[in-house]
Order: sequence, then C-alpha cells, then structure tokens
Amino acid sequence: MELLEEYIRRNGAVKEGNVLKVDSFLNHQMDVQLFAEMGKEWKRLFADAPINKILTIEASGIGIACVVAQEFQVPVVFAKKSQSINIDGEVYSSKVQSFTHKRVYDVIVSRKFLTPEDHVLVIDDFLANGCAVNGLIDIIEASGATLEGVGIAIEKGFQEGGKLLRKRGVRLESLAIVDAMDAAKGSLTFRQ
Amino acid sequence: MELLEEYIRRNGAVKEGNVLKVDSFLNHQMDVQLFAEMGKEWKRLFADAPINKILTIEASGIGIACVVAQEFQVPVVFAKKSQSINIDGEVYSSKVQSFTHKRVYDVIVSRKFLTPEDHVLVIDDFLANGCAVNGLIDIIEASGATLEGVGIAIEKGFQEGGKLLRKRGVRLESLAIVDAMDAAKGSLTFRQ
Repeated sequence: MELLEEYIRRNGAVKEGNVLKVDSFLNHQMDVQLFAEMGKEWKRLFADAPINKILTIEASGIGIACVVAQEFQVPVVFAKKSQSINIDGEVYSSKVQSFTHKRVYDVIVSRKFLTPEDHVLVIDDFLANGCAVNGLIDIIEASGATLEGVGIAIEKGFQEGGKLLRKRGVRLESLAIVDAMDAAKGSLTFRQ
Repeated sequence: MELLEEYIRRNGAVKEGNVLKVDSFLNHQMDVQLFAEMGKEWKRLFADAPINKILTIEASGIGIACVVAQEFQVPVVFAKKSQSINIDGEVYSSKVQSFTHKRVYDVIVSRKFLTPEDHVLVIDDFLANGCAVNGLIDIIEASGATLEGVGIAIEKGFQEGGKLLRKRGVRLESLAIVDAMDAAKGSLTFRQ
C-alpha cells in the first residue's frame, strides 16, 4: 500500500536488532486518518469474505482494528494478555512469545465473544515470527469460528511468520512488506 | 448519554465488589458504532476547545480513543504500562494503581508526542477512583501541554474520582454516571 510505505519511509526509523520504529503514527502515537485508509484497503482486499468480527491483540493492534472495523461495520474483540478479575473463567487461551518484550505471556478471549457462527478477520500492527497471529488463530480454531484472513500493517518479510502462514493456506494481506533493513544506513527495502 | 445508558442497561451486568461488566460492547468486545456516537457527543460537548491530540491509556481506552479521534480529526497517543525496548529513554512517566488488576504500574509517554503546543483531551472507558486519569494529567502537566478536558464513558459516581477532578476545575464529561449499583438485585441507578 503506497500510502503506508510513504509513512514508513518518511516517519519510520530502522534500529539495531531488526527494530523498525513507527511509533509516531502506528503504535504509540496513532494516525487515525491513515488507519481509515488502511481499513478501506483491507475492505477492498477482503470484499468477498463474509467477515462479521475482527480479532486483535492488546495493545497496539486495538486502535487499528477499531478504525478498520468501522469500514467493515463489525465489532472488534481484543485478546487480553493476562487474566483479569473482569473476565469470567470461561475463556479460550493461548501462549504467545513477544518479540518486543522478550517474554512469553498468556492471551485470552472470553468464550462468549467467539462462536462457530463467527467469520473472523485478524488484524495486527506487525508480523515478524508470527507468534501473536498464531496464538490468535489457535483461539479461533478452538472456538469453532472460521478464519477468513489476516490483515497486517507491516510484515517483516525477512522473518518466518508470513511465509509460514501463507504455506498453511492462510489468506494474509500485509499492507507493507519490508524485505530488508539496514540500521547502519537507516535504509529499508519494500517487497514489490 | 441516552444511547450509552441503554447499552449498559441492556448488556451490562452488576457484579459483587462494585464491578460493572460491560465487556460485550466496551472493553473486550467493542461496538465501534457506539464509539462513533460517543465521539459525536464529545465533539458536541468540547466544540469550543482547541483540541489537537487525544491521550488515553492501554488497553481498553485505545479503541474508544481512536474512533473518537476520527470525529476530532486528531492523532491519539496512548500511555504504555511498562517500558518496552521500542520506546526511547526519553519518556514522561507516572505511577497508576489499577482497580481491576489490584496493583501499581508505571505508565509512560514518549516526550516526542506531548509538547507545550498540545491541547489534550483525555479519553478513557471508566472513571472510579481516578488513578488512571490522574496519572495521565500528571504526564500532561510534566510535558507543558494544556489539558482541555477529560471524556469518560462510564463514571462510577459513588467513587471519588469524578468529584475530585471537578473540584480541581478539570472539565470532565462522563457520558454515563452510575450513582448506585446493587449486585444482589442486578440493578443500577444513573445520575440525571
């Protein structure tokens, strides 16, 4: 997606350790007008899919998912990273390893909000090794809901996550795929 | 706000320990069409305020804030609950006690995203004792930005947070104020 690539070139920063900082518009400060354009693009790409729910994971997926959900006119469910007293015992859960925080945590979704009638689009800000998305797919499978596809803002194409999802037959639409990053030069290459 | 009160009456549940469960539309599953109506209402209430940024706190404030920000046509910044390797060292921070999770955590905002030029609307899902909002106000004050007001979806009017903010002169607009809850009867009373 041209507009997102422009934002990344103009406002992103390549850091050591394969970190792409996009916190000025994607995941700390959030440009909701960009998110609305991303929503239109995913709506175009998934026009034929009977999506009735969007699933994401806290925290940085939530803002994108909610703006995108307005385009689809469906509710959002976000997977929570730890058990809270406000969640009933009846949950689906999965374990996820965080690239950013270097630890494993449980993600949970209340059983009330995913059922076999649901057709789910997964939305997240980043796809690298795919741990978060795979955790969400585990939860969707456990619920009996149908996975319609996965929409990712920025895929790190030099990591395994995207390749493995496509090999499994998951319909994956990443709006920008970064195939190479060079922290010393501050440069990056997008997949055409 | 009539529509939000209707949602709470129809879909909320009053639980022991002053817990109001609204997870089917506000903070686990999220009804983005409701959020858009809430955005219109806050835009009406803050029509005269020169708001150029919305500040919220992860995780459950983010979805509301992003949909509301579309109405205001401004970016959102969310305060993060712990230091992440993706955040530079330059942050404002404050300590917040969580009612839901029964613990104290640090919230941080990158200095890049709050400056003395900013006129900030704080948005959150709940106001009870006011710890989260007060933490955000501390951060706004530290940055030199101007606090234009606070928009809360549901205020627990029988707890201190709202009263103390109003006493300090903060412009607080809660869209629903619950003055009493009875878990045994499953009933609640809204402030008129």
